[in-house]
Amino acid sequence: MITRRGLLTGGVATVTGALATPAAKAAAATAVADATAPATVTGAASGTATGTAVEPFHGAHQAGVATAPQAHAVFLGFDLLKGTRREAIVRLLQLLTDDAARLTQGRPALADTEPELAANPARLTITFGFGPGLFAAAGVDSPVRALPAFSTDRLEKRWSGGDLLVQVCADDTVTVAHAVRMIVKDTRSFARVRWTQRGFRSTNRRNLMGQIEGTVNATDLDRAVWIGAGPLRGGTTMVLRRIRMKLETWDAADRVAREFTIGRKLGDGAPLTGSAETDPPDYARKNRLGFPVIPEFAHIRRAHVADPALRLLRRPYNYDEGLSPEGESDSGLLFASYQADVAAQFVPVQRMLAEGDLLNEWVTHIGSAVFAVPPGCAPGGWIGEGLLG
Amino acid sequence: MITRRGLLTGGVATVTGALATPAAKAAAATAVADATAPATVTGAASGTATGTAVEPFHGAHQAGVATAPQAHAVFLGFDLLKGTRREAIVRLLQLLTDDAARLTQGRPALADTEPELAANPARLTITFGFGPGLFAAAGVDSPVRALPAFSTDRLEKRWSGGDLLVQVCADDTVTVAHAVRMIVKDTRSFARVRWTQRGFRSTNRRNLMGQIEGTVNATDLDRAVWIGAGPLRGGTTMVLRRIRMKLETWDAADRVAREFTIGRKLGDGAPLTGSAETDPPDYARKNRLGFPVIPEFAHIRRAHVADPALRLLRRPYNYDEGLSPEGESDSGLLFASYQADVAAQFVPVQRMLAEGDLLNEWVTHIGSAVFAVPPGCAPGGWIGEGLLG
Ligand code: HEM
Ligand code: HEM
Repeated sequence: MITRRGLLTGGVATVTGALATPAAKAAAATAVADATAPATVTGAASGTATGTAVEPFHGAHQAGVATAPQAHAVFLGFDLLKGTRREAIVRLLQLLTDDAARLTQGRPALADTEPELAANPARLTITFGFGPGLFAAAGVDSPVRALPAFSTDRLEKRWSGGDLLVQVCADDTVTVAHAVRMIVKDTRSFARVRWTQRGFRSTNRRNLMGQIEGTVNATDLDRAVWIGAGPLRGGTTMVLRRIRMKLETWDAADRVAREFTIGRKLGDGAPLTGSAETDPPDYARKNRLGFPVIPEFAHIRRAHVADPALRLLRRPYNYDEGLSPEGESDSGLLFASYQADVAAQFVPVQRMLAEGDLLNEWVTHIGSAVFAVPPGCAPGGWIGEGLLG
Repeated sequence: MITRRGLLTGGVATVTGALATPAAKAAAATAVADATAPATVTGAASGTATGTAVEPFHGAHQAGVATAPQAHAVFLGFDLLKGTRREAIVRLLQLLTDDAARLTQGRPALADTEPELAANPARLTITFGFGPGLFAAAGVDSPVRALPAFSTDRLEKRWSGGDLLVQVCADDTVTVAHAVRMIVKDTRSFARVRWTQRGFRSTNRRNLMGQIEGTVNATDLDRAVWIGAGPLRGGTTMVLRRIRMKLETWDAADRVAREFTIGRKLGDGAPLTGSAETDPPDYARKNRLGFPVIPEFAHIRRAHVADPALRLLRRPYNYDEGLSPEGESDSGLLFASYQADVAAQFVPVQRMLAEGDLLNEWVTHIGSAVFAVPPGCAPGGWIGEGLLG
């Protein structure tokens, strides 16, 4: 063992040796004041504009939902330890809110042991969601419940469920890793990590199938995303689906088949009936043989919701983990959507897709979780106070 | 099964149904020409400057060594399939060289099935290294051999060895994922994936212990890195060590102990004897009690090499994988160093560190691999031609 005193002398004879004499110990203690510079935090030595950009933490809504998606995300799912009741949950949330309020603003968490890593917030957001189990433990009626089963589900327990979600997003990987560590550390006496899901986005908005994502999305957030009344007022709900892509067989499909599958062109994301990404798809248009130009079972046709108040806010990340010895990839999409009402918005779309989406040939839902996302809080407040306070 | 023809009609009655009549099949075939736009690759719809930046591929040296480190890396270790001989290895290397020459310049690989993902090179580099096993299979004397054992090694087979290294680095995660897939695909008939190691770097150059890295590095590359004579002329050697950090106990050490451990200040990376990161450390300086200000067993003192011709070119990446249920992290450093001579440069430094480095209390080497990095090639050539051609 290297003791702290041993370190301070700087002259220990062997790394495993401890100090032999009381005199040496005294000398070591004096050496501290003499030999070390004050432990000031000067921040990133070479931080860039990206590194120091900040997203606000306090406000009517939590950040990380309407926030322009950052390049990196870690979704953490926790299970509360048995016997964790409302009072302990409140303490946990107060602690985590304080961590998030500091870290997102580029300041170290109270218990931060790597304060320099906090100096590079890189648009860090930390967003909290409560699963049905958290409400049950707190003795409060849950505003969310587990999703119904869909015929195409192949859910694995290790990627599903969870009492507490912490979503950590930033444009810098080390920033994300540091925030995750701080959160996990402060959660340790209250909960266990159920799953960790790491995701990333490209500057060109393409997923691992090569498609451009995010063309059509909720824009009327006050109706489609933010809940207008009740204890979750100002909050929303979140669905997280881990969707594995079978890239090996996707590779075997040709371009025509791929473009038909989505209903959009790979080159520029334009609908098959248009010439620019933002052109509205013409679902009625038929080719001269009488077939719809955008197939009946094309993903965008099946997923399309005309009423802007019912649209999902999709904020997906790609995932890519390891490779089998045969080179088969373990990759796909961490599909995250936010909506005011899971039953009225997410469930009908996912049902349409499960019943018939050409994409199903190449994608499999292997994880699923649903959370209530409480509203934001004011300085001094904490996330969840309107629900559990 | 969805058949390609089924897709093309756009009007299949059920997703699982195939086309019933020859007439419908003919209609479907015609629909292709009618309903699809030409499959041109227009590139990133919203590529940024980062996205389209290119590193040269051809030249005297391979890229990815002296290249300013990109934000993301995947190191792929392959084992050749039993019975793969020189002639097959040559074909593999020709194939992979062609892939790398194209992908790094923002052009799709020949067998590319997601050509759009190639349009965002983001400073992509693809670097090849040959392990002792590749030379043995080719019947050629190996210029590198496995490293000697070090007393602090706790090596795991799953992170060690490998006949062929492919190092893929870029500033965009999707670019890296795509290039890895193309490489793995083209390697499949020749080799199996032995390990995949994913790494990342922060804009502020800090590792997961919070330290600034890369202050002192080889600068005289023509002597320290590039080999001057023999079949590896213009090439180099690479050592890859997977070094796990025990961040939980590192957290328990105070700032004074941490700064003594490295010999530099956490705030700005200045040596304990200086006030700016680039100040040369004064190893002779003693405090008024007679102890060296930079401890005997401080990492930088133990690792320091005075002769610029013998310095390592370090190009490390952080790694961070999953979390145990108790929240223990699996993270550390993918230490990659390039040097003209492994035995004269890497081994003595690592021996010094194994014998006594305060850092050993918190880091464990769990993976090790060594490769010959052939020189670069000219257009039309291939990586390794001077060795195996
Ligand atoms: C791996 C799985 C998936 C992939 C690769 C995928 C891909 C895409 C792509 C490329 C688009 C067109 C561009 C855009 O507007 O974003 C799109 C649109 C859309 N997707 Fe998905 N998606 C997946 C899963 C899902 C799921 C699970 C849902 C919801 C349950 C969903 C809902 C939507 C919606 C609502 C749209 C917009 C439709 C419209 O134009 O109105 N997607 N998706
Ligand atoms: C997890 C393991 C390691 C960590 C966290 C680490 C960290 C550091 C830090 C913070 C510095 C000072 C800044 C700099 O000059 O880059 C440094 C310097 C250095 N490290 Fe490491 N290092 C590790 C492993 C290694 C290994 C395995 C080697 C070689 C076998 C090595 C060789 C060096 C050298 C040569 C220097 C420069 C020394 C000088 O000032 O001349 N390090 N390291």
